[in-house]
Amino acid sequence: MTIEDCKHVALGDKVPTTIRIGDVVIGGGFAVIAGPCAVESETMMLDIAEAVKDGGADMLRGGIFKPRTSPYDFQGLGNEGLQILKKARKTTGLPIVVEILDTRDVAIAEDIDVIQIGSRNMQNFALLKEVGKTRKPILLKRGANATIEEWLCSAEYILAEGNPNVILCERGIRTFETYTRNTLDLGAVAAVKTLTHLPVIVDPSHATGRPELILPMALAAAAAGRCGGTDRPLRRTVWCATVATGPGVADESPGRRHPPGGYGECRAHHRGGGSQRDQAAAGRLVRIARHRPWTPDALGPVSLRVLQGALTAPRPQSTAMPIELSDQ
Amino acid sequence: MTIEDCKHVALGDKVPTTIRIGDVVIGGGFAVIAGPCAVESETMMLDIAEAVKDGGADMLRGGIFKPRTSPYDFQGLGNEGLQILKKARKTTGLPIVVEILDTRDVAIAEDIDVIQIGSRNMQNFALLKEVGKTRKPILLKRGANATIEEWLCSAEYILAEGNPNVILCERGIRTFETYTRNTLDLGAVAAVKTLTHLPVIVDPSHATGRPELILPMALAAAAAGRCGGTDRPLRRTVWCATVATGPGVADESPGRRHPPGGYGECRAHHRGGGSQRDQAAAGRLVRIARHRPWTPDALGPVSLRVLQGALTAPRPQSTAMPIELSDQ
Amino acid sequence: MTIEDCKHVALGDKVPTTIRIGDVVIGGGFAVIAGPCAVESETMMLDIAEAVKDGGADMLRGGIFKPRTSPYDFQGLGNEGLQILKKARKTTGLPIVVEILDTRDVAIAEDIDVIQIGSRNMQNFALLKEVGKTRKPILLKRGANATIEEWLCSAEYILAEGNPNVILCERGIRTFETYTRNTLDLGAVAAVKTLTHLPVIVDPSHATGRPELILPMALAAAAAGRCGGTDRPLRRTVWCATVATGPGVADESPGRRHPPGGYGECRAHHRGGGSQRDQAAAGRLVRIARHRPWTPDALGPVSLRVLQGALTAPRPQSTAMPIELSDQ
Amino acid sequence: MTIEDCKHVALGDKVPTTIRIGDVVIGGGFAVIAGPCAVESETMMLDIAEAVKDGGADMLRGGIFKPRTSPYDFQGLGNEGLQILKKARKTTGLPIVVEILDTRDVAIAEDIDVIQIGSRNMQNFALLKEVGKTRKPILLKRGANATIEEWLCSAEYILAEGNPNVILCERGIRTFETYTRNTLDLGAVAAVKTLTHLPVIVDPSHATGRPELILPMALAAAAAGRCGGTDRPLRRTVWCATVATGPGVADESPGRRHPPGGYGECRAHHRGGGSQRDQAAAGRLVRIARHRPWTPDALGPVSLRVLQGALTAPRPQSTAMPIELSDQ
Repeated sequence: MTIEDCKHVALGDKVPTTIRIGDVVIGGGFAVIAGPCAVESETMMLDIAEAVKDGGADMLRGGIFKPRTSPYDFQGLGNEGLQILKKARKTTGLPIVVEILDTRDVAIAEDIDVIQIGSRNMQNFALLKEVGKTRKPILLKRGANATIEEWLCSAEYILAEGNPNVILCERGIRTFETYTRNTLDLGAVAAVKTLTHLPVIVDPSHATGRPELILPMALAAAAAGRCGGTDRPLRRTVWCATVATGPGVADESPGRRHPPGGYGECRAHHRGGGSQRDQAAAGRLVRIARHRPWTPDALGPVSLRVLQGALTAPRPQSTAMPIELSDQ
Repeated sequence: MTIEDCKHVALGDKVPTTIRIGDVVIGGGFAVIAGPCAVESETMMLDIAEAVKDGGADMLRGGIFKPRTSPYDFQGLGNEGLQILKKARKTTGLPIVVEILDTRDVAIAEDIDVIQIGSRNMQNFALLKEVGKTRKPILLKRGANATIEEWLCSAEYILAEGNPNVILCERGIRTFETYTRNTLDLGAVAAVKTLTHLPVIVDPSHATGRPELILPMALAAAAAGRCGGTDRPLRRTVWCATVATGPGVADESPGRRHPPGGYGECRAHHRGGGSQRDQAAAGRLVRIARHRPWTPDALGPVSLRVLQGALTAPRPQSTAMPIELSDQ
Repeated sequence: MTIEDCKHVALGDKVPTTIRIGDVVIGGGFAVIAGPCAVESETMMLDIAEAVKDGGADMLRGGIFKPRTSPYDFQGLGNEGLQILKKARKTTGLPIVVEILDTRDVAIAEDIDVIQIGSRNMQNFALLKEVGKTRKPILLKRGANATIEEWLCSAEYILAEGNPNVILCERGIRTFETYTRNTLDLGAVAAVKTLTHLPVIVDPSHATGRPELILPMALAAAAAGRCGGTDRPLRRTVWCATVATGPGVADESPGRRHPPGGYGECRAHHRGGGSQRDQAAAGRLVRIARHRPWTPDALGPVSLRVLQGALTAPRPQSTAMPIELSDQ
Repeated sequence: MTIEDCKHVALGDKVPTTIRIGDVVIGGGFAVIAGPCAVESETMMLDIAEAVKDGGADMLRGGIFKPRTSPYDFQGLGNEGLQILKKARKTTGLPIVVEILDTRDVAIAEDIDVIQIGSRNMQNFALLKEVGKTRKPILLKRGANATIEEWLCSAEYILAEGNPNVILCERGIRTFETYTRNTLDLGAVAAVKTLTHLPVIVDPSHATGRPELILPMALAAAAAGRCGGTDRPLRRTVWCATVATGPGVADESPGRRHPPGGYGECRAHHRGGGSQRDQAAAGRLVRIARHRPWTPDALGPVSLRVLQGALTAPRPQSTAMPIELSDQ
């Protein structure tokens, strides 16, 4: 088995795939997906959705089935969370990205815009086949210890069932380094762009687990994605978009529905984070404005300026709940 | 989240768990599980089952749903394979171990003796919960990049649903070393025995991918499992059993049902193997006789002698198909 | 021991360190270091040096003591190589970077411009102390399995002896991924810039081992280095420079002095490379022109354009030795 | 470069190498090397040496040049430490094993019995060549991220210089698992025994960093080493010996010579250790008696009994310094 055998995934002479989701085109420029780890309550989700929209992100994400290491961590609101997400989509107009864990839940695909296959399920082949039978865009995260070949083979499972809408997402691999949560493998991003026609995006938030590294890694991901190989003329290049998933929101308000500590794991993703101050810094990425139209020459000055602007903007007052939330 | 929070898994004052499966007791001595990677045909499976029985193994394994990296590799015979396995069980009297990949397949638990959750599904939480609702013994393989804590948390998912019959199985972790297929982490075996009351077994075949290393690693696993911690008296020790899963069988006979190359991935597990000669060497482990009763003092001379005997026995003629198969 | 204890290395209130080497300022913009793995002969080295100069690189590198995995691989020309390098410096005007392996060789520091401590010697503490007694710039490569903390502690060894001129160089860490030679850890680059005032550079060539990934990773490195932390105003930012070390040159000409296969290991670094065509592609990076002055807004259009130009330029004819060499 | 090219290291038809050091034969049975991480004072070293001797160990180890991650950790007593070690050798009659870090220190080989090349220096080729010019036994630790091939190539460096007395030592590789300090790779031990005639020993203490895992891993190492390959008759088998290096000793007595916290790194090796109670448990291994003569059948009952005896012996009172020290 080699990558060449992945006939649907392999680049060959194929034109780079772009995937249209509402007004957003993945594979066509720099796009930002943002949102909380989990939908925890309607108030929380609508607040964040508003901030994500105001920040200029392109799509909204939020988990309703949460793959938690421990069975005692918050497992997601399920159908109730789905209804909240749909309301947030209606309010903001942003397409929604939702992770599915079980073949029996694929039916909710009707209600959402992008199905996420999480890193732990990258080789859940039954699930891959099932989502391959839909025509929904599938955001396929690389497993934390998956080789490039295994990642592409998992994409092939989906494509072989007839669904051509696969978005690859690098989210960090597991290494000996413990300072960052995982090691973002941008070399794999560039490599994959020489091997396949599929769009590749990057999740700098889960990969690094450190708010202060999200922006540099988002920029680096954009740069890594600019050129896919020696011989490929620029017009055929598939651009990197960036997924920025915010850390969990600390929500201590009484009456909110979720078990105490339910957002704990999300926060634990973010070593050295957790303070309101750090979370606020991370959250600013959401407010990034994007330059359109996107041209090869435009990356540097424009997007850098807005990204830097986002980073150096005055911080919201951390005690004011609405603003605090808006930083997620 | 710490291991201490895994209230069902944590050792505390609990007595080591032993799990009875027919006449076999896992957690009570040295046991061998053997069989081919996948059920490929009735003839093949019955031949191997006979060899496994003759070799003195305690349980028979064989895959009917195969989690393959590539969608074009043999995906298993499904229900047809199940019927073959049941026939093999009837012939040999050995309990059968079968991997399940999908929540929708848990119903076949009625027909088998042990459900295997494979390494790629260790964090398929929907599947863990579903098998937790049965009372079948669950053989839970450690993910190739799972930490000890994550592994135990996955066991907790099963136990928290009410199924106490979990067997942990170390099968090698993914590291930079490429000489062996994975790196068998026997330190984790010994560590886990200080942390939980569950039995731990080891898969030296998939871990090393090299026939010549199966026997030394089986011995090392037995030794690693002998003592679980500083303060625990020996009578409370949970013993290691060893899973020896044979490599795929090269079966070139016309008329056998499986796609060409269907056993390829299995063989690929075994770097440097693949030749009939190497496979035969690996297969000999199956013929290991076991010393009973199992006492602390008995490890060395007796089991070593039989293991060494198995290894130095005259090789079967590699051209004779029945004998060749019996070496699997 | 924490990074904060590394009093010389820790950022604190310190101004970012810039290191002047001739006309080059490391820590002040985008710089390129290029050259062959090993000095193999005078003709070869002078040819390459000319190409490196023409390509617009800032410094020249070439090994004279080679740390080879095997004792039978070419071990370097030693003093003869040093004389050749000095001649190349005289011809091109470029400062020279040379790796030292042994405390007894530190005396040659007088003759060179930058001492490189290779990845395998990052924790050769005797050597670190010895080069710490000089005042030469030290290019300290991160060990292939060194944590960030260990890397910075090694830098502290040098600084603690009184030599403030340390340049950190990320060159890929060893992971399970085998498609690339190592995994370039740009998250560590960004992280280190929040932790220390030292300049950080990146070696995309040895990290990826694939010619087609050198350019995207050089760009990504530049982007990762643009912003070092949440609170640091841009004027204090330390910029990433990029080390582009070319692969070994295939030199089959009779009469050249080195053992047959002496450049083998270098070529082996570059999986999938090795053909003249691939090597030529890699070598083009050397011809990158750099935009000066370097301003925050200038990254994208200008440097991208020249980098892309370098990549899409017509290839040299692979049979013509002078041009082939100029691609190194 | 393949292992077959390592003509001195490769097994071929060679008889397994045994190395005689005084009365000890490495490669001929189960041997124990024990001692503190660093020589910290004469009183401390002589106390420990006595305990090591009483415990039945075969050789004494103690560092006088310490390769410390931080320049501010205790760097060893140098020549003063050497004199102390020589006194300890005279008192106990045990051969001494000492690590050398610098080519300039190889001259002390005259005064010691075994030169240790530490894991960080496994690819310090200048040092390898220099010790290869002596005829001293060299204990070559595997680098924490070295492949088997690299390890054997490093041994080849020593043998190629004319010194045939190389002892390979597996001491754990660096992986993502953090529960243990490193991951003891016993599969590599068994693999190496099929590839080379050199003796292989194991350091379960530094590998696991957890006192409670030293004994099970020592046993597992012995088991892994029992059979080196499919075809090799037992009389040719090279047995594993076990290096048990104790953790650093907490020495708070006034007037002892070393900087405060000087033993910190050693202790840090041992996660979850550090308390006197844990250190005492670790230290008991030193008191292991060994069964002689060593025969294939004798491993199990006898050595297990003594090892278990060592582990379940009443703990020393942690407040009594002499006894506490004797547990190191």
